[in-house]
Amino acid sequence: MDQISAWRAHGGTQGVYRHHSEATGTAMTFAVYVPPHDPGDRLPVLWYLSGLTCSHANVMEKGDYRAACAEHGIVLVAPDTSPRGEGVADDPDYAMGQGAGFYLDATQAPWTPHFMMRRYLERELPALIGNEFPVDLTRQGITGHSMGGHGALTIGLRNPSRFRSVSALAPIASPMNCPWGVKALGGYLGPDRTAWRDYDACALIADGARLPALLVDQGCDDAFLAEQLKTHLLEEACTEAGIAATIRLQPGYDHSYYFVSTFLGEHVAWHAARLA
Amino acid sequence: MDQISAWRAHGGTQGVYRHHSEATGTAMTFAVYVPPHDPGDRLPVLWYLSGLTCSHANVMEKGDYRAACAEHGIVLVAPDTSPRGEGVADDPDYAMGQGAGFYLDATQAPWTPHFMMRRYLERELPALIGNEFPVDLTRQGITGHSMGGHGALTIGLRNPSRFRSVSALAPIASPMNCPWGVKALGGYLGPDRTAWRDYDACALIADGARLPALLVDQGCDDAFLAEQLKTHLLEEACTEAGIAATIRLQPGYDHSYYFVSTFLGEHVAWHAARLA
Repeated sequence: MDQISAWRAHGGTQGVYRHHSEATGTAMTFAVYVPPHDPGDRLPVLWYLSGLTCSHANVMEKGDYRAACAEHGIVLVAPDTSPRGEGVADDPDYAMGQGAGFYLDATQAPWTPHFMMRRYLERELPALIGNEFPVDLTRQGITGHSMGGHGALTIGLRNPSRFRSVSALAPIASPMNCPWGVKALGGYLGPDRTAWRDYDACALIADGARLPALLVDQGCDDAFLAEQLKTHLLEEACTEAGIAATIRLQPGYDHSYYFVSTFLGEHVAWHAARLA
Repeated sequence: MDQISAWRAHGGTQGVYRHHSEATGTAMTFAVYVPPHDPGDRLPVLWYLSGLTCSHANVMEKGDYRAACAEHGIVLVAPDTSPRGEGVADDPDYAMGQGAGFYLDATQAPWTPHFMMRRYLERELPALIGNEFPVDLTRQGITGHSMGGHGALTIGLRNPSRFRSVSALAPIASPMNCPWGVKALGGYLGPDRTAWRDYDACALIADGARLPALLVDQGCDDAFLAEQLKTHLLEEACTEAGIAATIRLQPGYDHSYYFVSTFLGEHVAWHAARLA
């Protein structure tokens, strides 16, 4: 693992790192904020998964999370959204290919062998983070924005023993039921919709996956809400399954990082309370 | 004045606006954050002046100030750093020309007639802000970063009745005594150094200008500290003049927005206490 950058921030260190991933077969870049802490401390870690077109850098620059992480003693890890580079498949659509890995393991050409973001995030990167940073992997939470909210929900639902806390900001609630998701899941996984259910929060809940609690914020003026995000499907799935979900519709907010940065600090505090 | 963008953020509105400036003879863009407030309220306003290469957008995206502004009820205005566009003079050096207006009124070709940032910021833009936003112009503070810290100090020192509170982040403390400043002041104002003294915080203090209080944060690992920023000159000038300056040297911090975003919230609170 190479350190690309490091900045002092809110008494801790905001760093950017790169390593060769076995899962994706590419170099992968990620950002980690480590708040001020005593030597020897192992801190809870919150994963933040980003949305379409984003890299590790968007939330690092625009997310306003460091004050909350410093206050609550939380390490925040922001991975990239897909493998990248020459030799990695891509698509002219911003919602497919590089920058749009949908946090899944592809089974279809040309996306195999590199688009293995599930394996990367569920196995490889946590092990690296556990070795290289002062974290306590028994205290992990996960959140994300948009496509990254979908990633947080599905990774959290599939790994309830790994993530004590799951939240999302304007998540794609059901990729099986929106244009972005149908194209991506069909492209990466092929036409058999049963294979898609592992990557759809509502389908996972319908199939029996559970969370002890869930916090979701969603802007009411989000231009993607009606066609792509469909928060109501997640709300219905949680109600039917008896999941204690706090789904807050926030008047006036859109899909931008001005929305994310308004609420991410509250999400950090919510996770910190569950990871204490 | 045209509204270019507006986003809901921390319960208020982050907007970007454009107008034709009489002072610069160009279109000028600026950002304003208006926090949540009751109808009819007129709020204190904090001016944030940006550094070399920046526009209105850098602090808006990376400054992490909205939570503090919302908490304290402060409007924050972020102007551009120079006139821009075709027909406006420029220089290949990033520290001169477009993006580097040094908050002065140029007297030398080719910088006249457009580089009139002093007139723009001391007269034209405050009048516009007072007309278009819910602000109380009897309660103004000013701050800034790097070249913008120089701007905040010099504008504040020249207009003590206008600005109740002045602070700076990693300011260019004495442009007359650093390479960036000598080139810029010489280029914009000509070789007569007496004309430069209006644009040098230390010279203004030596010539009798005073502030009731001053807050400065400066990173100890700032690569520009020794050659360009020279905080100690400001400290010496304040000591000699009896100005109650709190100048904090912050170990480990550099010149980036990770430094700015760490301390800008505290500056907002400091100004709010003086503008109450």
